[in-house]
Amino acid sequence: MPTPAETFVAVREHARKNALLATIDAAIGWDERTMMPLAAGAWRAEQAAELAAVVHRHRTDAAQGARLEELAASPLATAGTPAEQATIRLLKHDFDKQARLPTRLVEELARTTVEAQQVWSLAKAASDWPKLCPWLERVFALKREQAACQRPDLDPYDALLDDYEPGGRWRAIAPRFADLRSRIVPLVQACAGATRRPDDRILTERVYPVPAQQEFVRQVAARIGFDFERGRLDTTDHPFCTSLGPDDCRITTRWDERFLPTALFGVLHEAGHGLYDQGLLREWYGLPPGEAASLGIHESQSRLWENLVGRSRAFWEWCFPLARAAFPQALADADAARVHEALLVVKPSFIRVEADEVTYNLHVMLRFDLERAVVHGDLPVADLPTAWNERFAADFGLRPPDDAHGVLQDIHWSAGLIGYFPTYTLGNLYAAQLMAAAEARLGDLPAAFAAGEFQPLLDWLRREVHAVGRLLESEPLVERATGQTVSADWLARSLVDRYGPAYGL
Amino acid sequence: MPTPAETFVAVREHARKNALLATIDAAIGWDERTMMPLAAGAWRAEQAAELAAVVHRHRTDAAQGARLEELAASPLATAGTPAEQATIRLLKHDFDKQARLPTRLVEELARTTVEAQQVWSLAKAASDWPKLCPWLERVFALKREQAACQRPDLDPYDALLDDYEPGGRWRAIAPRFADLRSRIVPLVQACAGATRRPDDRILTERVYPVPAQQEFVRQVAARIGFDFERGRLDTTDHPFCTSLGPDDCRITTRWDERFLPTALFGVLHEAGHGLYDQGLLREWYGLPPGEAASLGIHESQSRLWENLVGRSRAFWEWCFPLARAAFPQALADADAARVHEALLVVKPSFIRVEADEVTYNLHVMLRFDLERAVVHGDLPVADLPTAWNERFAADFGLRPPDDAHGVLQDIHWSAGLIGYFPTYTLGNLYAAQLMAAAEARLGDLPAAFAAGEFQPLLDWLRREVHAVGRLLESEPLVERATGQTVSADWLARSLVDRYGPAYGL
Repeated sequence: MPTPAETFVAVREHARKNALLATIDAAIGWDERTMMPLAAGAWRAEQAAELAAVVHRHRTDAAQGARLEELAASPLATAGTPAEQATIRLLKHDFDKQARLPTRLVEELARTTVEAQQVWSLAKAASDWPKLCPWLERVFALKREQAACQRPDLDPYDALLDDYEPGGRWRAIAPRFADLRSRIVPLVQACAGATRRPDDRILTERVYPVPAQQEFVRQVAARIGFDFERGRLDTTDHPFCTSLGPDDCRITTRWDERFLPTALFGVLHEAGHGLYDQGLLREWYGLPPGEAASLGIHESQSRLWENLVGRSRAFWEWCFPLARAAFPQALADADAARVHEALLVVKPSFIRVEADEVTYNLHVMLRFDLERAVVHGDLPVADLPTAWNERFAADFGLRPPDDAHGVLQDIHWSAGLIGYFPTYTLGNLYAAQLMAAAEARLGDLPAAFAAGEFQPLLDWLRREVHAVGRLLESEPLVERATGQTVSADWLARSLVDRYGPAYGL
Repeated sequence: MPTPAETFVAVREHARKNALLATIDAAIGWDERTMMPLAAGAWRAEQAAELAAVVHRHRTDAAQGARLEELAASPLATAGTPAEQATIRLLKHDFDKQARLPTRLVEELARTTVEAQQVWSLAKAASDWPKLCPWLERVFALKREQAACQRPDLDPYDALLDDYEPGGRWRAIAPRFADLRSRIVPLVQACAGATRRPDDRILTERVYPVPAQQEFVRQVAARIGFDFERGRLDTTDHPFCTSLGPDDCRITTRWDERFLPTALFGVLHEAGHGLYDQGLLREWYGLPPGEAASLGIHESQSRLWENLVGRSRAFWEWCFPLARAAFPQALADADAARVHEALLVVKPSFIRVEADEVTYNLHVMLRFDLERAVVHGDLPVADLPTAWNERFAADFGLRPPDDAHGVLQDIHWSAGLIGYFPTYTLGNLYAAQLMAAAEARLGDLPAAFAAGEFQPLLDWLRREVHAVGRLLESEPLVERATGQTVSADWLARSLVDRYGPAYGL
C-alpha cells in the first residue's frame, strides 16, 4: 500500500499531465485565433474535439478518482499544509464534477459549439438571427444537460456559473448588480443631458500609425510588468489572453489607426490577465494552489490595469511623453490632461466590446439577466432578440438597428459560455474594491504611477491575489485582501467620482 | 460480426484519429520553432512527450490490429478498389512494424535520442567529438536493434531506410550514387580550376531589406501555386514545412538582408514540399492514398521548384521585374541574366546546409556511405571523424578545420535519423528525371516559366506524383511518371549542362 505522501505525489503527477494536455488545447486554440489559415477551420474543429476527448478520458481516469478518495480519507486532507489540503479538496471536487459528464455529452458540446461559432460568424455578418437561433437552442439545451449532470444539487444557472466563478450564486450577485444598475443608469442619463462634455477629438480625429502603436503598446505592457521572455503579443480579431504553460502567456489585440484606445486599452486589459497568469505559483502550476481563483478575479486584474491604472490622470503623466514620442504628429498639440479628458466620454452604444467603462456594466447585466431567464426556462431562445431590444431600450434609451448590433454581437453563447458574462462585472466590482484597498495600504499610488512606478501595486497584487491561487474563492479572497465585505459600492462610487466631474456633474 | 465494409470504415476512422493527433503534434512543433517564447521550452518538451505517449497508445491499439488482420483476410484486400487494397496492405504493414517494437526499445530510443540531441548541441558548439561519441554508439546500437526487431527479413540498413524510403534498397542506390559521384567530383574540380567564373557580386554585395523580401517571396510562392488560404509563411531558425491538417500547410524561412537567396530559395524549397502536401487527396487525408510516397519523393518536389525552376534562366525572365520592383536599389543596374549567372557559383564548403546545388550531393553521399558502414559493422563509431575527413578531402579537396565543420555538423544521427540522408540525393535524382519527363510531355516549359506560367507543370506533378499518394513506392512512381527506369543520369547531365557553361567548361 502506498503511503498518503506517495499517493499525493501520484495525484500531483496526474494533475500535471492534465495541465500538459489542457495547455496543448490552449496552444491549438491560440493558433486558431491568431495564425490559422482560413480554410483550416473544419480540421481544427475535429482536432479540438479529439483532444477534448483525450483530455476528458485523462481527467476522468478511475485510478485518479480512487487516489483522491484515498487521500480525502487520509490525515493529509485535514492535517497537511493548506496547499495540500486545498489540492486534495479541489481536485476531488473537479474530478467528481467531471466524472459526472458522459463522454458523449463532452464530445457533442465540443462539436456543437465549434460549429455554432462558425454559424455565428456568418449570422452576425448577415445580421441573420434565424440562422443562429436553432444552434443556440442546441447549445442551451446541452448546457442545461451539463448542469443537471454535473451539479444536480445546484440551481442550474449556478451550476454553470460554478465553472467560471466557483462558489458564485446568482441570488447573491443579482442584488449587487441591481444596486449598481440603479446608480449607473442615472449617471448615464445625467451625462447625456449635461451641457459640459469631455473633448475627445484628440483621440477620434487623428491618425496613429499601426507600426508605432505596436512598439508603443509593447513598451507600456512591459513597463507595467508583463514579461515578454515568458509571453508574446499578437494580432487577432477578438482579443484574449491565454497561457500555454507556466512560462508561455500569450496576449492579443487588434489595431485601429484612427482610434488608439482600441489597442492600448486592449493590451492593458490582456496584460492585466497576463500579469495574473505570470504571477501564479510556478511550483504548483496546473494544481489548485497555482490556479486562478475564478474568472471574476481574473477579470478584476485586467480591469484594474485597464481602467483604474490606464485611465487615471496619474498614468498619463508618465505615459504622455512616451505617447508623444510614438505619435509626434497626432499628439503635437496635446498634453496629458487633454488625452486623459478624452478618455472620459460616456456614450450609450450598441456594442459591448466598444462600450465605455460606465455603460459597459449595463451591457453585461443585460446578458446576465437574459441568459439566466433562458437557463431557468423563463425565456425561449427564440424570444431573445425581442427581450434584448426591450431591455436595451430601457437601460440605454436606444433600440439596436439590427440583431448584429444586438443579440448577435457576442460569440459567448455560441461557444457554450453561459454563466460567463457576470464575471465581467464581478471583475469590475472586485477591481474597484481591491484598488481602494491598495491605495489605502500603499500610500500615494498616483504619485507612483506619474513616475512610471507600477511595481509596488504589482507586488501587492502578487501577494494578495496572484499567490493565493485557488486556495480561496473569489469573495473570501477579496474580503481578505481588502478587509471589507464584497459590494458594488466601490465601483459605483469610483465611476461617479471619475466620470461625473468630466460632465460637470 | 461486422462486414468487411464496416470494418474498413472503423479502420479509416481510427487512422483519421491518428492523423488528428499527429497534426496536433505538428501544431505544437510548428509553434515551438516559430512562435514560442524562449522561456517556454521546458514545458513544451513535456507537452510533446505526453502527446507522443497519447499518439503511441492510439497507434498500437490492439483493436485496430485485430481489424486489420480481419481485413487482410477479407475479399476487400484483393478485390477492393486500388485505394482500399493499398490502405489495408499499408496500414497493416505499418501496424505490424510498430507492434514488433518492444515498448522498452521505444522508450529507450526516445530517451536516448532526446539526450543525445542535447549532448550534440553542446558537443557541436565546443567541437568536442569525444563528448558525443559514446552517445552515437548507443544510438547506432539501438537502431540496429530496432532494425532486427522490425524487419528481420531485411538487411539492417535497408530496414532503417524503409522508415523514410519505403522499398528503398542500398544495393540499388549505391551504384547510382557512385555514378553521380564519378561525374560530380570532376565537375567540381573543373570549376575550381576554371579561369572563367560566374560573377555573384549582385547577390553578395548588396542590401535586400527584409520587409521587401517578405512581400517578394510571398508573391513568388503564390505564383508557383502555394495556396495561402490553406497555408502560411513564417520565420524560423532552421526552415521546414509542416502540415497541421489537409488545409493547413505551414512553410517557414529565415532572412538575410545581405543574401537574398537564403530566403528566396528557402521558400521555393519549402513551398515545393508544401505544394506536394496541398496536392495530396483530401478525402484520403492521413490514409495511404492521401499520404506522401516517401521522403525522397517529398524532397524531389522541393528540389524541383528550388533548383530546376527557381535557378533556371527562364524563371528569372519572369521573376526579375518583380525582384527589381521589390529591391529597386540593389537591382538598379542588374538584369535577369546577371542575377541568373550569380546563382551558378560552385564552391566546395564544409557545411551541407550551406552547400551549392552541385556539391550538396557529395555531402549527402559521404554520409550515406559512412552511416551504412557503421550499421553494417564495418566502421566503428569512434572512427567516424577520421573516415569523414579522409572522404571529405577526396571529394572536396579540403580538410575540415575541426569536427564542428565535419562529423558534428548535423543533428540527424543524434536524433536517431539513420537511413534518412540518402533521401536528399534521391530527391535530387527523382526531381531531375521528373523534370526531364515534364519537359518532354509539356512542350516548351522555359517559355511558360518566362511568362510566369507554372500551372501546367504543377498540374502534371499533381497528376503524376501528388495524387498517387502512397499507392506506389518511389521507384515505380517515378518510372510510371517518366517512362524510364530510375537513374542518376538526368541529374548528372542537368548539373553539367547548367553549371559547366557558367565556368566556360
